[in-house]
Amino acid sequence: MVVKRNIYLDNVPLKEAYDIFFRRIEELKISPAWETVPVEKALDRITAEPVFAVISSPHYHASAMDGVAVKSADTYGAMETSPKHLKLKEQYVPIDTGHPLPSGFDAVIMIEDIHQVDSETIEIISAAAPWQHVRVMGEDIVATELIIPVNHTIGPEDIGAMLAGGIWEVKVRKKPVVTIIPTGSELVQPGEMPGSGKIVEFNSRFFSGLITRWGGKPRALEIVKDEYDRIKEALLEAVKDSDVVLVNAGSSAGSRDYTAAIVEETGELLTHGVAIKPGKPTVIGIVQGKPVIGVPGYPVAAFFILDLLVKPLVYKLQGVVPPRRSQVEAVMSRRVVSSFKAEEFLRVKLGQVGDKIMATPLPRGSGVITSLVRADGFV
Amino acid sequence: MVVKRNIYLDNVPLKEAYDIFFRRIEELKISPAWETVPVEKALDRITAEPVFAVISSPHYHASAMDGVAVKSADTYGAMETSPKHLKLKEQYVPIDTGHPLPSGFDAVIMIEDIHQVDSETIEIISAAAPWQHVRVMGEDIVATELIIPVNHTIGPEDIGAMLAGGIWEVKVRKKPVVTIIPTGSELVQPGEMPGSGKIVEFNSRFFSGLITRWGGKPRALEIVKDEYDRIKEALLEAVKDSDVVLVNAGSSAGSRDYTAAIVEETGELLTHGVAIKPGKPTVIGIVQGKPVIGVPGYPVAAFFILDLLVKPLVYKLQGVVPPRRSQVEAVMSRRVVSSFKAEEFLRVKLGQVGDKIMATPLPRGSGVITSLVRADGFV
Repeated sequence: MVVKRNIYLDNVPLKEAYDIFFRRIEELKISPAWETVPVEKALDRITAEPVFAVISSPHYHASAMDGVAVKSADTYGAMETSPKHLKLKEQYVPIDTGHPLPSGFDAVIMIEDIHQVDSETIEIISAAAPWQHVRVMGEDIVATELIIPVNHTIGPEDIGAMLAGGIWEVKVRKKPVVTIIPTGSELVQPGEMPGSGKIVEFNSRFFSGLITRWGGKPRALEIVKDEYDRIKEALLEAVKDSDVVLVNAGSSAGSRDYTAAIVEETGELLTHGVAIKPGKPTVIGIVQGKPVIGVPGYPVAAFFILDLLVKPLVYKLQGVVPPRRSQVEAVMSRRVVSSFKAEEFLRVKLGQVGDKIMATPLPRGSGVITSLVRADGFV
Repeated sequence: MVVKRNIYLDNVPLKEAYDIFFRRIEELKISPAWETVPVEKALDRITAEPVFAVISSPHYHASAMDGVAVKSADTYGAMETSPKHLKLKEQYVPIDTGHPLPSGFDAVIMIEDIHQVDSETIEIISAAAPWQHVRVMGEDIVATELIIPVNHTIGPEDIGAMLAGGIWEVKVRKKPVVTIIPTGSELVQPGEMPGSGKIVEFNSRFFSGLITRWGGKPRALEIVKDEYDRIKEALLEAVKDSDVVLVNAGSSAGSRDYTAAIVEETGELLTHGVAIKPGKPTVIGIVQGKPVIGVPGYPVAAFFILDLLVKPLVYKLQGVVPPRRSQVEAVMSRRVVSSFKAEEFLRVKLGQVGDKIMATPLPRGSGVITSLVRADGFV
């Protein structure tokens, strides 16, 4: 038996691979889709259009205090030395905070500032200015006013403000469906203890967590055996109802790494091999108008490819850019030498030492998922 | 008709109200509960115990490269000037990345470094060190090793690491059930345009969003009319299957503000009136061993009470403390005078002006939910 191998088509720098990929996505006019959801279920969704109020809030003049509603004109001249008496119904009405002012009334006097003379009379010792202690109509929201803009991630307060403005449904970006095809005859599903040479398929669950955090809708398929036709069939099926497809493993240049060839046969192979470490064995292509990424099998390599290529794509399909990663300046606790051939991403653990932050490199192996568990950041 | 009013029992500083509340919770030994969930569904949950690996990962010696597996001893002495030939099966076996080394083999030579002589023979020109290009058993995770500690928020990488370590289920904190009772005869449900004097019940949806973000499980009940017995009945029903109950509005001292009296009748009233602005009309108590908070009706006041009292409670019931709010130093764009009687929380919008960050105060009205939508922070 001859050892048969693919060769990498190319081994392009990350920036170039990124640019080729996203330029092609622009050309294909792959753009965000939208759907309508009830406002109450819109937490963390992204608006697909600006939202304008339909009603004002409050939509009537409301008391801002517990006390009595009065007509300000009736109160003029009231002073400590010459108190005024007001009559129930015609001149004053008890009112609680938030309740509407009866028609004709235009001010509120606080409970603390009145003196009850008898069951139908109160005494006041100062005048009420018009609209005193009144939340006038539209104080919070005026009908037709912009509540939240387009491309805005909906927070709890936005839900409150939309409902206050009479909006019950909102147009939001559809969550991009990202289908993960786990391939490999050595894989077994979690729940089953792996025999020799078998490994637990955990990558699709790891990826699903990342995609969920980015606002996407992950869908992990059953494990597909390392056979060209089976993977091809799964891919062609998956692109039909996905926005993005990830083929996990099989993206390298081994004898059973079919992803590049399948993408080439069924679509357009943009890049095979990205010059980063870890993460080199990566396939980028388009199949039936859908972005397809062959993701390395090693979880750390996979993480960087997902973070560098899939994350911006999932956000782009929601009309936004990923939030900026927080940065901190730190001193490496020991020298690390990287190869010139590839951009290297190093996992580090941070610690405060005196007034400096020290970054201690974690194991560099791309199969070491615990280095991601322990990492505080990347260099 | 005489204007009947409650009086605030007290008007205690925030810190004191907080201390009284949380001390009582300590005394009552209200502590986090746990449940078991599949690891795949554990994203963002908090571990209730440390998680240790059941199997090693890899649980066999695996190739770290595409190439051939060899016995290192067979390769000794190979040099450019005196190449060595190895025979298929006895001396070399083609191997892909991640695949197990056949028994007796202890090193891998990369595909690039071998020369295929015929279908059953390869030539090598340098020796392979033992365990060269091999991921030895347990390189990532060693069985019995700690994968993640207790009180740890589970991320995507933790899901991967647990599955790799042979863990299929994990003990996590139960999401605290926070029941919200919206009270008020003036309230109508969203979906219905409010008539005069009616307002849309949006607070429970606003609170639900906040509680969800804090890891709790919000449950909003139907609107309860402003009647003492109805609210009491709803509260007694709600405490049965909730960890926390919020009674929204009715916490002030108006003639139809029953929360304080109901808590006093059915349980233990700890505080009525907290000296913060907005947020004063707040009721804090314990009913049948469950924390009950009467939350002000105005959304901004409600927000601060939820943020200052309910958020730490929801986190505490999950065994953790809330993440720290990020802080930034800023200059107020104009002078703001606060009353001495209460701690005031001001919503501000931030802007960069030269090398300073300016904080511009937003409307102070506690009914103005849009001030929360527009705010970048609080002072």
